[in-house]
Amino acid sequence: MTDEQDLGITSSKSHQTGDWYAEVVQKGEMADYAPMGGFIVTRPRGYAVWERLQENLDGWFKETGVQNAYFPLFIPESYLEKEKDIVEGFDPEVAWVTHGGNEELEERLAVRPTSESIIAPFLAQWTRSHRDLPLRLNQWCSVVRWEATETKPFFRTKEFLWQEGHTAHADEESAWDETMTRLDQYERLYEEVMAMPVMKGRKPEHDKFPGAHTTSTVEALMPDGKSVQGGTSHYLGTSFAEAFDIEFVDEDEEMQTAHTTSWGLSWRAMGALIMTHSDDQGLVLPPAVAPEQVVVVPIYSEDTQEEILEYSADIAAELDEAGVRVHLDDRDHRNPGFKYNDWELKGVPLRIEVGPNEMADGEVTFSHRPDGESITESREDLPATVEEHLDAVFAKLYASAEETLEGEIREAESREEILGTLGQHGGYVETGWCGDEACEEPIKDAIAAEIVMVPLDRDEEPIHDECAICGEEAEETAYFAKSY
Amino acid sequence: MTDEQDLGITSSKSHQTGDWYAEVVQKGEMADYAPMGGFIVTRPRGYAVWERLQENLDGWFKETGVQNAYFPLFIPESYLEKEKDIVEGFDPEVAWVTHGGNEELEERLAVRPTSESIIAPFLAQWTRSHRDLPLRLNQWCSVVRWEATETKPFFRTKEFLWQEGHTAHADEESAWDETMTRLDQYERLYEEVMAMPVMKGRKPEHDKFPGAHTTSTVEALMPDGKSVQGGTSHYLGTSFAEAFDIEFVDEDEEMQTAHTTSWGLSWRAMGALIMTHSDDQGLVLPPAVAPEQVVVVPIYSEDTQEEILEYSADIAAELDEAGVRVHLDDRDHRNPGFKYNDWELKGVPLRIEVGPNEMADGEVTFSHRPDGESITESREDLPATVEEHLDAVFAKLYASAEETLEGEIREAESREEILGTLGQHGGYVETGWCGDEACEEPIKDAIAAEIVMVPLDRDEEPIHDECAICGEEAEETAYFAKSY
Ligand SMILES: [Zn+2]
Ligand SMILES: [Zn+2]
Repeated sequence: MTDEQDLGITSSKSHQTGDWYAEVVQKGEMADYAPMGGFIVTRPRGYAVWERLQENLDGWFKETGVQNAYFPLFIPESYLEKEKDIVEGFDPEVAWVTHGGNEELEERLAVRPTSESIIAPFLAQWTRSHRDLPLRLNQWCSVVRWEATETKPFFRTKEFLWQEGHTAHADEESAWDETMTRLDQYERLYEEVMAMPVMKGRKPEHDKFPGAHTTSTVEALMPDGKSVQGGTSHYLGTSFAEAFDIEFVDEDEEMQTAHTTSWGLSWRAMGALIMTHSDDQGLVLPPAVAPEQVVVVPIYSEDTQEEILEYSADIAAELDEAGVRVHLDDRDHRNPGFKYNDWELKGVPLRIEVGPNEMADGEVTFSHRPDGESITESREDLPATVEEHLDAVFAKLYASAEETLEGEIREAESREEILGTLGQHGGYVETGWCGDEACEEPIKDAIAAEIVMVPLDRDEEPIHDECAICGEEAEETAYFAKSY
Repeated sequence: MTDEQDLGITSSKSHQTGDWYAEVVQKGEMADYAPMGGFIVTRPRGYAVWERLQENLDGWFKETGVQNAYFPLFIPESYLEKEKDIVEGFDPEVAWVTHGGNEELEERLAVRPTSESIIAPFLAQWTRSHRDLPLRLNQWCSVVRWEATETKPFFRTKEFLWQEGHTAHADEESAWDETMTRLDQYERLYEEVMAMPVMKGRKPEHDKFPGAHTTSTVEALMPDGKSVQGGTSHYLGTSFAEAFDIEFVDEDEEMQTAHTTSWGLSWRAMGALIMTHSDDQGLVLPPAVAPEQVVVVPIYSEDTQEEILEYSADIAAELDEAGVRVHLDDRDHRNPGFKYNDWELKGVPLRIEVGPNEMADGEVTFSHRPDGESITESREDLPATVEEHLDAVFAKLYASAEETLEGEIREAESREEILGTLGQHGGYVETGWCGDEACEEPIKDAIAAEIVMVPLDRDEEPIHDECAICGEEAEETAYFAKSY
């Protein structure tokens, strides 16, 4: 049995962010560490959040022409090596299957780190005529990347859950539209579902997905001043289509090479969500993803127990009927204070307290998880009132995340200024950049910050005329930040 | 470009069942073969069917207290070996990951063949008090079993998609109820969603899941007379709980060992579905799982094209609005005959034909996929009429599958009779059995048939007094069949 004081969060979000995050994830019952370093177990509460993210994104994908499919978990080494035609120095950090039962395999199989090289040959097979295009596939699956880093649930794990979309198009315009459609859907997921503003941008040339023409990204700023790459959407040009022969007969009976895209969002989004909204009391979840949106806590003495439990059960039933995800905490062996702490730890966005006063007056008392605001309302029309309060909680979460981002994009015009500003404030520093990776290095070496994005629009004038590092002519605006 | 005559199914279901099945799967666009033997690619039409099976089952699971979670893809060899404590001669045929990147791993990792050994330690960790029970977890994932057999999409693949449920309970009664609840849900999936009657039973002792107290099964009879194990639900007793220390403090503050269950249904269900309903024209899918329930085919000449297309689009829009999954095939470069064949091949349960006569009379013509029955109906109240016709199609499919099963359970009282009956008719042979595996062998050796089940009820009197093979006293009724 655990001591009660161990139940709550003991680290501080602002002072011990890493420890605090690990505590929130575990005590909020989102995930546990698996026995093998780099792996985690996603617990029911964590998986329920993932299911809500999936539901939203999957619905939008399907509304916009995407079909789900499932490709093998393993990729033969020779298939993976085809990417060497596209990417120089390709050396995949993957998990290798070498034996099946007691037999050594003739060819090693990689556990998929991403599926371009196994999906592209099928896109080629299924693309015959311009009428087959656009061809839009997506799969929800797990992938493995053998990177040796400390485990950080949802942020850094060797295995992670994600979706990967793979599409083929007749021309660049259609493929570019696709790339932007998916990026916009990722932005929408963060903003409308997770209550987090994000910035859209492009990865610098040296940090693109290998083989891509353009890698676009949504970046979210965490309260500790670091940026999280929240999802990426790649316009692959014709490089994969050329390597894998994705060709089609156009309307004039001419053979053409397709343009392809790929795009992915992983459970890292859940890491960003937890990091953004949670606090020293524990997990905070926006209403759209919370496993329970409302918890009803009855407050009674021996005398009032029966009628207050009845009143509470009525409330829970009415909300459930109205489609609210509600839980009645009628545990008799726990007092209301324990229950408050417990559900705050677990991130339930809205609490309804029902005591003798509420019952006598035909009222309920709401408590908002993010700021503890307490408001008593009439019990009449409860589902509508609850809806309003859930919206209010969402608005508070969004406003607070927006505040984190606001004012956190600062200009700098020299190496010293970049280092000083990032060192003091974190956040993003925007500066003129010549486009040369060498000019990122001094910043990376000094404080492990990097260029997390440049503007999506390639024609946008750089913010300064000169590169802040080398003084050559600036080609674009670079956004430096530390990142997860 | 493919020749038109290659588009249809060229093998006969009754005479070349194996070839026919492979053709239906591929030409019906359910799946393709992957480059590695034993692996397949599930195409969008196939995956859409899988999603409908998932949706139904997942909904029922959640209504009955199950929570989804996600456990690691890999299981350390030492964890898997713990099952040696439970099962003698345990030698898992699994895919082994031996290298991560360029490094050899200190301990080999198995790609999960099933997850008891990685989930049980967490059930132990999360089970403290009787208040934590029952604890019901499920995951939807892929598993790998390195069995060297010829690939048969959905029936025999090294990797397959499934769900695996794992639960812990305070006592045998609760665990047994759980086992039966899941078996009943599998039965319901087959009967109500897939239009297939199944038989419920128990695997004989020698064919139980390793370590299980009881393995229950739903068995479906295929038109070629072979049985398919359609899903299994295991009551594990306390064996896993003992090996992995799943213990709890009961209401009297005493430590108790939990009783556990596990249960799984894989995409083999899709194989059984395809095998059962499809025919020499191609795929046949029941309305509840079909990606498109209705296809509207307009029949027009140059003169009537505009108005007939408009009338058809109207119909499709009205059905879509009503929640019917409908597709309007307005391809101008294909004639109606081609379209009929194409959608018959792809298994759409109901076709609506709209020509000049239908339009003039304010009618539509329905064609039922299973038997080609053609019925003209008023265009008024179309969604309700469509619903009726979809129900009629379901009823036809169910009746036909029921007919396959009916009369296919025959009695036999000797080795010769078992062999003769199975050889001549296939199906199930029920007979008295002493319970000894040795009495299955002569049948297995002669015609590769085996005891696919015995009655669920252990107290049921055997159908005959004596074992048909050895003549000793019969303990139970055995159902012999060939199986997939
Ligand atoms: Zn420079
Ligand atoms: Zn016998």
